[in-house]
Amino acid sequence: MKIAVLGSGFIARFYAESLHAQRRKDYIHMVYSRNRVNAAKFAEDYQLSFFTFDMWEAISHPETEVVLIALPNHLHLEAVLACAKAKKAVLCTKPLGRNAKEAKEMLDAVEDAGIFAGYLEDLCYTPKFLKSVKSIEDGNIGRVLWTKSRETHPGPHSDWFWDKEKSGGGAIIDLGCHCVEIGRNFIGKEIRPLEVMCWADTQVHPIEAEDHAIGLVKYNNGAIGQFEVSWTFRGGMDLRDEVMGTEGTIWLNSFLRTGFEMFTTGKGNSYVAEKAESNSGWLFPVGDEAHELGYPHMFTDMFDSMEKGIPPRETFYDGYIVNAILDAAFLSAKTKKWEAVIIEDWRGEQASAISEKFQDFDEYHFLIKKEILPSGVSKLILKHKITGEVTQREE
Amino acid sequence: MKIAVLGSGFIARFYAESLHAQRRKDYIHMVYSRNRVNAAKFAEDYQLSFFTFDMWEAISHPETEVVLIALPNHLHLEAVLACAKAKKAVLCTKPLGRNAKEAKEMLDAVEDAGIFAGYLEDLCYTPKFLKSVKSIEDGNIGRVLWTKSRETHPGPHSDWFWDKEKSGGGAIIDLGCHCVEIGRNFIGKEIRPLEVMCWADTQVHPIEAEDHAIGLVKYNNGAIGQFEVSWTFRGGMDLRDEVMGTEGTIWLNSFLRTGFEMFTTGKGNSYVAEKAESNSGWLFPVGDEAHELGYPHMFTDMFDSMEKGIPPRETFYDGYIVNAILDAAFLSAKTKKWEAVIIEDWRGEQASAISEKFQDFDEYHFLIKKEILPSGVSKLILKHKITGEVTQREE
Amino acid sequence: MKIAVLGSGFIARFYAESLHAQRRKDYIHMVYSRNRVNAAKFAEDYQLSFFTFDMWEAISHPETEVVLIALPNHLHLEAVLACAKAKKAVLCTKPLGRNAKEAKEMLDAVEDAGIFAGYLEDLCYTPKFLKSVKSIEDGNIGRVLWTKSRETHPGPHSDWFWDKEKSGGGAIIDLGCHCVEIGRNFIGKEIRPLEVMCWADTQVHPIEAEDHAIGLVKYNNGAIGQFEVSWTFRGGMDLRDEVMGTEGTIWLNSFLRTGFEMFTTGKGNSYVAEKAESNSGWLFPVGDEAHELGYPHMFTDMFDSMEKGIPPRETFYDGYIVNAILDAAFLSAKTKKWEAVIIEDWRGEQASAISEKFQDFDEYHFLIKKEILPSGVSKLILKHKITGEVTQREE
Amino acid sequence: MKIAVLGSGFIARFYAESLHAQRRKDYIHMVYSRNRVNAAKFAEDYQLSFFTFDMWEAISHPETEVVLIALPNHLHLEAVLACAKAKKAVLCTKPLGRNAKEAKEMLDAVEDAGIFAGYLEDLCYTPKFLKSVKSIEDGNIGRVLWTKSRETHPGPHSDWFWDKEKSGGGAIIDLGCHCVEIGRNFIGKEIRPLEVMCWADTQVHPIEAEDHAIGLVKYNNGAIGQFEVSWTFRGGMDLRDEVMGTEGTIWLNSFLRTGFEMFTTGKGNSYVAEKAESNSGWLFPVGDEAHELGYPHMFTDMFDSMEKGIPPRETFYDGYIVNAILDAAFLSAKTKKWEAVIIEDWRGEQASAISEKFQDFDEYHFLIKKEILPSGVSKLILKHKITGEVTQREE
Repeated sequence: MKIAVLGSGFIARFYAESLHAQRRKDYIHMVYSRNRVNAAKFAEDYQLSFFTFDMWEAISHPETEVVLIALPNHLHLEAVLACAKAKKAVLCTKPLGRNAKEAKEMLDAVEDAGIFAGYLEDLCYTPKFLKSVKSIEDGNIGRVLWTKSRETHPGPHSDWFWDKEKSGGGAIIDLGCHCVEIGRNFIGKEIRPLEVMCWADTQVHPIEAEDHAIGLVKYNNGAIGQFEVSWTFRGGMDLRDEVMGTEGTIWLNSFLRTGFEMFTTGKGNSYVAEKAESNSGWLFPVGDEAHELGYPHMFTDMFDSMEKGIPPRETFYDGYIVNAILDAAFLSAKTKKWEAVIIEDWRGEQASAISEKFQDFDEYHFLIKKEILPSGVSKLILKHKITGEVTQREE
Repeated sequence: MKIAVLGSGFIARFYAESLHAQRRKDYIHMVYSRNRVNAAKFAEDYQLSFFTFDMWEAISHPETEVVLIALPNHLHLEAVLACAKAKKAVLCTKPLGRNAKEAKEMLDAVEDAGIFAGYLEDLCYTPKFLKSVKSIEDGNIGRVLWTKSRETHPGPHSDWFWDKEKSGGGAIIDLGCHCVEIGRNFIGKEIRPLEVMCWADTQVHPIEAEDHAIGLVKYNNGAIGQFEVSWTFRGGMDLRDEVMGTEGTIWLNSFLRTGFEMFTTGKGNSYVAEKAESNSGWLFPVGDEAHELGYPHMFTDMFDSMEKGIPPRETFYDGYIVNAILDAAFLSAKTKKWEAVIIEDWRGEQASAISEKFQDFDEYHFLIKKEILPSGVSKLILKHKITGEVTQREE
Repeated sequence: MKIAVLGSGFIARFYAESLHAQRRKDYIHMVYSRNRVNAAKFAEDYQLSFFTFDMWEAISHPETEVVLIALPNHLHLEAVLACAKAKKAVLCTKPLGRNAKEAKEMLDAVEDAGIFAGYLEDLCYTPKFLKSVKSIEDGNIGRVLWTKSRETHPGPHSDWFWDKEKSGGGAIIDLGCHCVEIGRNFIGKEIRPLEVMCWADTQVHPIEAEDHAIGLVKYNNGAIGQFEVSWTFRGGMDLRDEVMGTEGTIWLNSFLRTGFEMFTTGKGNSYVAEKAESNSGWLFPVGDEAHELGYPHMFTDMFDSMEKGIPPRETFYDGYIVNAILDAAFLSAKTKKWEAVIIEDWRGEQASAISEKFQDFDEYHFLIKKEILPSGVSKLILKHKITGEVTQREE
Repeated sequence: MKIAVLGSGFIARFYAESLHAQRRKDYIHMVYSRNRVNAAKFAEDYQLSFFTFDMWEAISHPETEVVLIALPNHLHLEAVLACAKAKKAVLCTKPLGRNAKEAKEMLDAVEDAGIFAGYLEDLCYTPKFLKSVKSIEDGNIGRVLWTKSRETHPGPHSDWFWDKEKSGGGAIIDLGCHCVEIGRNFIGKEIRPLEVMCWADTQVHPIEAEDHAIGLVKYNNGAIGQFEVSWTFRGGMDLRDEVMGTEGTIWLNSFLRTGFEMFTTGKGNSYVAEKAESNSGWLFPVGDEAHELGYPHMFTDMFDSMEKGIPPRETFYDGYIVNAILDAAFLSAKTKKWEAVIIEDWRGEQASAISEKFQDFDEYHFLIKKEILPSGVSKLILKHKITGEVTQREE
């Protein structure tokens, strides 16, 4: 694939490095940036054929097969609409919109235009995550009850993130979009998110937006998707997911504890580990940052899906649902109540998926718990189906 | 100290084993149990001088110096009132009451009687926890912004826990009492808890009470104390605490990952690890369970404090505050709104402790973030104090 | 690159899956296998254009640009000689030979033929390993004193491994080849390995070869490269490296503890984690096995190097040195003494790299140790340069 | 018990703090130190009744029931002989002697005098270790094949350790004594240690003794007890044990990774974690250092055994065996060969404990390995009992 990238900042560079590594066959052939110098520098660094400071030129260039949007949040809509107009396949970085209204407009535009559209939610493509989701689908942890996704670090790299108008919010929009979609994948995308409860505050930084938030998303089958996001964390970048199921548990650590530990007195004095807050003491680098964050597997799915003519794992519809959930989170943080997730166009299951939850012990009792004591004896805790009385017995 | 223990179940045995280990000088001299057989068996197992099935006899026994309440929740009040009447020092297991009303009655009784009263919140006495609290008090992680305490396992051992009338609730009362008090210690007991948001559900077990809950406790200085409690967790007992501060982070794992890892094919077929859900595969025992759960240090503080005539680290007042917070949690789970914590007798600080939160960069700007780039250059993100404009510069 | 693969077993399939993933541009176009059915099956599974049971046909095929040797150890020599004859670039799986003599013959053949030859030591290409080596080269842990590389598991998949004639040995040749080369990379390939001390035994399996061995390789600068290899380990595949330097420490865990933890009761009953010895309890899968084991980065280096006309990171010369070290290890296991590493053609540094090791404190003393006491005082332990007297002082 | 402690340095203080904590009933009543000021200071700090600078006075004091030797290595013999003369029970810190000859003299003296004598090998009393040994005795990991005990840190606190005459050696005598006895406990004290292979070097410090060593101790049943000791490690104190058995694995981490992780920017600037080499970045404190290192359980066993009139878990005989093994290690480091362990008075089993090692598959074959493939099929690797041929089949 020949790719035109829009934007030349941190995320554009990260994409370029992922795409141009490991002898992949797809490549960026041109870059657009508002800033002429940045565009030229980017083209030189990644040996691109062209650069431009006219977005339309990049999109409509006859050799451009795919447009890769790596722009600040407030510029996504304009770029997507241009791709729709040009009938070019489009991949858009996360979050899709600053809110569900913007996201819906983008969704409608790509669907009306009939173009391929992928939502670049990289953290739903990390190898650990893909294997976890597969394992859940295979039934290894039973019915999913709760998921927690956490992304916290000391704050983003570029100024526009900190400006609520441009970004659409603070840590919730920047990090929560990852966490919410991670929860959806674990719980099942066909399950409707019903309502959200969210706490948010500006605890440390002199900004209008929140720099710390916790939210609970309630799904139609009773499962909860929790997110924990912050720009106030000290110690690096904390990326952890947890899943509780009726038959098992999954714990993922994608950055700070991945089997790479290092101590240095600091005498070498060189750059040691990405996103660490220190160059001495115990440090926890990752092996291949792009890989750990899901970029290579994400682009593989996108281009494979384009070639096969099928939707990718993460679509603009997913981006829209994420924005709808985050809208409810922002509202809840203000109203201090659970707020409904408003989805104009729900495409998943309508009814709740829970059939019956309780485990029969015998005709008269439910089994509450069975436990093997150190003595080897099984202890049973039972509940009478009619009287409701709780009793215990050994067997 | 000569101790009379009330109760002969799981927790009474755990207390007895902690007290009679490591050549400690305090000891249990008698036991009360409603059940004559259990009382006799307990007395035999721990070589006690006496046993009785009359609670008053144990409390009022002339040699009893301290009464140790290890009874189901619904029997705490009666036992505490009897101790007050007998003017005997009393230590009560957690939670103090089934609700704040009961706890307040106990608090008033011991204060009116002028007796020593200790609240046996063991998880606020684990060595890791004590060292963490000291480190926070020394300023090592700055201002505490958020704490999370998590206690989850597949459900309690005895029938009465599962009966809401006797216990006062489900996972919230059983496990939440630990987590809430852990949060209070980290944030500072002098900081008033203002309000609580809680989600609770019965996801797996055929019971009236909740078997899973998540709550956020908001404190007067803006800090959040989060609790995660469940009787639906698979994989053992998950006891983890986390603290985020402006200058640091603390992560504690008290049970499943403490530096003891073991794989067994299961051929030995003997009891391997406490609270594990399996006898084969990878197992994670703890070295000395009582120690990891805080029992020895807890009793040391209790008896040392009695001898010195000072209050212990954990008092009935703390138990009362915990119940007040949990009452708000139960209410919030129903109303789906933040609910105020009602405290009749607040003894901590009245006003908020936050002075100013923002860091000056120069006369005109706040510093949002400073980051050292791989190139060695410092990148600054600043906010203008008057215009609010966010800009970035390198230096 | 168009690749012909020789062999159709476990490792050939692993290579094929790595090469044909992630939209890489190099691909296998044909396969040779002694077994007609296996060849056909392999070609079908990986959609190859051709298959053959004539090795020479695969090597000499006009479209074959690179030959990938994925055969049992005793067939490497014949295959390499054929590649040399056909003047085709060759990549050979590890170990290069069953002994240094075979390896030297292969080295000479490819050098005489002037063909590109890469040694497929994948574990020297894992992302964690590459970053560690870079960090050491940057001076972050000072002078390397000791390295340990450990590879243990319950034993290999195929019958020929267990036959000493075909494999050249047991765990030492199968796993030690990795560990030795890992140590060489950490210590520096220019430093000459001098002698080896090795213990080896057949502790569990009914075989002639060793199923467990520990070895120490002494280098010319005083550093030690330790290897621990076994086919008797229970609990999965244990891949760990450690490095001690004068200014720091590195710990790598490449398989069993990489930030992916999972508990399952086993009810799902499906395949959960590769190389695990169980399908229930706590399991520790890896995200992308090929990536964690270094395959993608290895092939990238090989083909990039071929295109640039430079040697890859791992060459046949490295393979030869590894075999020479392992020969000394086998001998030492018999003689129970340190045995010299015999290298016919040493191409690294001749002299020892250590200049002076001791740190001056002042004109008269060396500094043995400086330690900051809890009181904040520095405690110094000094040695007089002439008298040798050891004293301590505080400052 | 009323205890007289000999010595007032680091280890004496550690003992005092362990004994006088947790309301234990045994206590130190007097201290002897060569240095009058230190003796007085120690007595004041721990509120002792007496202090003296006459060793005999402390030992022979009529109220002294037990003598606790916490002196530098070269003073153990004199102190033990004095205890024997005074017929006082004696506990001696590790190592027992500077060599086996000294240790044997102490062993003979206490046995001739008929006094209780305990060897204070604390690391064989950590709760994790005690539970591991119990688990091995219960058969949970099968036959023990190999153990590794590692103790490394940046070097000891006091000057005499660094002086070979006073200490008897370097890291081998200081740290190896722990590691060797840990291995003996795992493998079984009744199994005779046969021979030792050891590498030792002075890699960093300006001293005569070794600051780094690796050793292998071979036991009569084929098991290997490996030790890794160093005064050159950077990053804190690394205390790890590993055991491989035919049916399982044990991994213990006693200090640097025990479930307590902390990041601090260093602004608090106070003492954070013991033995850490830094006050900022990621730190890994332990909860209760004495507990993690085994002191409380060690003293409990010592005094309980005295009262019961039985030998403690760790005796002077154990101390002697350890010295005998270390003597062989020192010799091997010089001769570069395996050296026999010379034991004058072996009290364990004479013969090898291995009966037969191989697992029958059927009348004609041994089973080499059984593996369940992802397809669910079992793959068997077999060896013919007569021809020795290795074959594989699926079932």
